Formats: sequence, structure tokens, C-alpha cells
Amino acid sequence: MSGTLYGLGVGPGDPDLITLKAHRILQRAPVIAYPAPEVGDSLARSIAAPHIPEGRREIIIRMPLDPQRFPDRTAYDKGAAEIAGALRGGDDVAVICEGDPFFYGSFMYLFNRLADDFPVQVVPGISSLMACAGAAQTPLVARNEVLSILPAPMAEEELRSRLLQTDAAAIIKLGRHAPKVYGVLRELDLMDQAHYVAHASMPEQQVHKLSDVDPDEVPYFAMILVRREGVGL
Amino acid sequence: MSGTLYGLGVGPGDPDLITLKAHRILQRAPVIAYPAPEVGDSLARSIAAPHIPEGRREIIIRMPLDPQRFPDRTAYDKGAAEIAGALRGGDDVAVICEGDPFFYGSFMYLFNRLADDFPVQVVPGISSLMACAGAAQTPLVARNEVLSILPAPMAEEELRSRLLQTDAAAIIKLGRHAPKVYGVLRELDLMDQAHYVAHASMPEQQVHKLSDVDPDEVPYFAMILVRREGVGL
Repeated sequence: MSGTLYGLGVGPGDPDLITLKAHRILQRAPVIAYPAPEVGDSLARSIAAPHIPEGRREIIIRMPLDPQRFPDRTAYDKGAAEIAGALRGGDDVAVICEGDPFFYGSFMYLFNRLADDFPVQVVPGISSLMACAGAAQTPLVARNEVLSILPAPMAEEELRSRLLQTDAAAIIKLGRHAPKVYGVLRELDLMDQAHYVAHASMPEQQVHKLSDVDPDEVPYFAMILVRREGVGL
Repeated sequence: MSGTLYGLGVGPGDPDLITLKAHRILQRAPVIAYPAPEVGDSLARSIAAPHIPEGRREIIIRMPLDPQRFPDRTAYDKGAAEIAGALRGGDDVAVICEGDPFFYGSFMYLFNRLADDFPVQVVPGISSLMACAGAAQTPLVARNEVLSILPAPMAEEELRSRLLQTDAAAIIKLGRHAPKVYGVLRELDLMDQAHYVAHASMPEQQVHKLSDVDPDEVPYFAMILVRREGVGL
């Protein structure tokens, strides 16, 4: 009998924001797998570190560092083949994923390669979206409002039009796109209704008013939350 | 010294989808508080039940049952006053919230009444959004795609236009609005790219193709996930 492939959300950064379920699976799984940059540590691995027992087999899928680059098909092929080998040998494999596996997660590339051949279980994780709202102490969205998740690399024109048409938004993957985003928020007079959060739930967490952050110094793992109006209750 | 108000996400239904952090706070907090229908059990209370030690003081905020009705200002005023009393007495109060406290959560009504006067900590929870994607084994959103969270009560015209303009969507709060939503999805030829999930992560969880569900029999706690195209990797 083949093993089960687990897609385990390990949460946004604070190791205590992992679920009891993911924690239990991590205790048991003989093999863990995760993407990592070509050189250096894996974010998911470092989040899950306190929960990984010693002596586990680890399958590391080395990826180009630049998150803007198209994911590396060959690296996923190779990683999936190695995982398939472990599963065929009867071992469960836990793929650890920062945040949630299916919310802009790289787990889907392994899932697409393996789900037809092996049993899969996906354990949802706390995403940075919820962690940022908690850190900024601001509701993401309420009642029957529309929430839009907007990756910052989109064109300025598109960002403007989408912000005009939504009640609330999370602008993600900021990095070098932050100056453009700031420009649009200023133009739409939304600066005062926006919150800036970087590295939510991690020791280096930053929560600021937008006007206190230099848009040229914004990291990739930063997010802006905007809401058009407060809750009138 | 006054106590701390905790907004604790307890996750979508499976008691094991609570975080280690929320679990630890629940073990310690002398007072827990939660909304409940006028008659009957609280969903958040039933999710958290295995983690609540005996003998805790419980503040129950009774609410009109119909989730479509405007939240009851008087009930929140009364609940907040009772919570404030406990906090002033030096007790921590954990408000337990199904899903995540700030993602369409009722915690914000208590937060708005109490955050100016007491220390607050918000612990994010697994929302139904991530739980539904995990249950349906389908990515919510990938790469630089836009994800729109669309409450089903919106007008048919608006729903059509928003679905036309997004890469991926979660249509929430279905209930009696499901027939309208089905109509729009059929018209836009999106039925085959949509997943239906009800009561994600609970024993009564349902995952179906849309065509296998009678739109007149859809509960409020059901969601449709749509994605315009698969991940081409």
C-alpha cells in the first residue's frame, strides 16, 4: 500500500500558528518535503522546525530565489519523482507549506504531479491574509462586502480600477511594486484607510501607517490592507 | 491591571484545525465569550468544546438566528459590557470565533466596543475559505491571479460582472441565493470549473460538482469556488 501525500499548511511564521492537525501529522510522517531557495534555508522548514522530530528524511526542492520568476518546472518534476518514490515505498510524505497550501502556494505544483497516483490530504493553514489583519487589528471584510486579493505586480491602470470596484482589498506581493501601489492609493485618497504589515506574526513583524513606510524599502512579504469604510455598529 | 481581550479564531469546524496558540490561550483564560442563537448552541462553542477546560465562566451573547438580519446592536452592547466587567476585574477573556475573527467575523462588533479601553490580541484562525479549498482539493488562486470573495446576496447583475473580471472567486453565504448563483455560472459557462463545498471540515462535509447539487437545497454555510483556468505547470 502506498503512503499518503499531505499538503500541510504551517501558517504565516509564528510556529504556534500551526494547527493541532498539522502538528500531529508532522509528528508521525517519516518523510517531509519542502521547497527552498537554491542557497539557504526554506521559510516553511524554519516555521515548522520546532515541530519536526529528529531523524526525519527530508526531500528539499531547490528553487530559483526570485519569487517573480516562473516556477521551475524541472525542479518540481524532480521533487515530485523523489516524493513518488517514498510514497510507493509506503511512507507518508508531508509537504510543508508556509501559510495555506492552496492560497498562492507552491504545493499545487506538486499536487498537480502526484494527485492522480496517490492518496492526498490537504490540511489548511493560517494564511498571511488573516495574520496581517490580526497583526494590524483591523477587520479584513464584514457583512456582505466584497474582498479582492490583488497581487501588486498588476498594471497600475488595472489596480486603480479594481480598487475602485471593491469594498475591501489586500494588496499582496508588494516588494518593488510598492511605489506604484502607493501612487494609486494616494490618488484614490485611500492612504488613511490602509494598513501596512510586513512579516506578520514573525519576530521581525512590522505594522505601520502607510505614510510611515518608505515605498522604496518594502519587502516582498508585505501586504497592504484597505477597507473603504468602518463597520457602523 | 485589567485583563486582555483575545479574539480567538477556532477554525472552520474540525476541532483539530485550531492553532496551538489559540489552544494554549483557551487552556488559560478564566472567561470565554461567544455569540449564540437566541435558542440553541453556539457554533464557535461547539468547535472549541474539546479544548475548553471545565469550570470556565462563559459569557453568551444571544443573537437573532437569521444570519441575514442586521446584527443586534443591543446584544453586542450588553455582551461587551459584561466582557468589560470581567476585564476590569483583571480576568482575560477569550472570545471564540468560528473561522477567523476578522474575515466576515462577528468579533469585530465586540472589538469596536472594547479595543479603546483594553489590551487586545487577535489570534488568526483557519477560515472556511482555506478549508473549502482543502476539502475540494483545488487551488484557490495561484501566481499573480486575482481572487474575489463574493457574498451571494449581491445583485445578479453585479455577480455576473464581478465573475467576468476575476481570475478566481469564492462565492460565500449561498443559502437561498444559490439558484441565482447557479444561473449566472451557467450563463458564463463556469459550471465545470466550479466546486461546491458545504460544512467544510465537519462530519457533515459535502464536496460536489455543482450539477450534482439542487440549488434549492443549499445551506448558508456552503461555498462555491471557481477558477478560470488551471495552473499550467
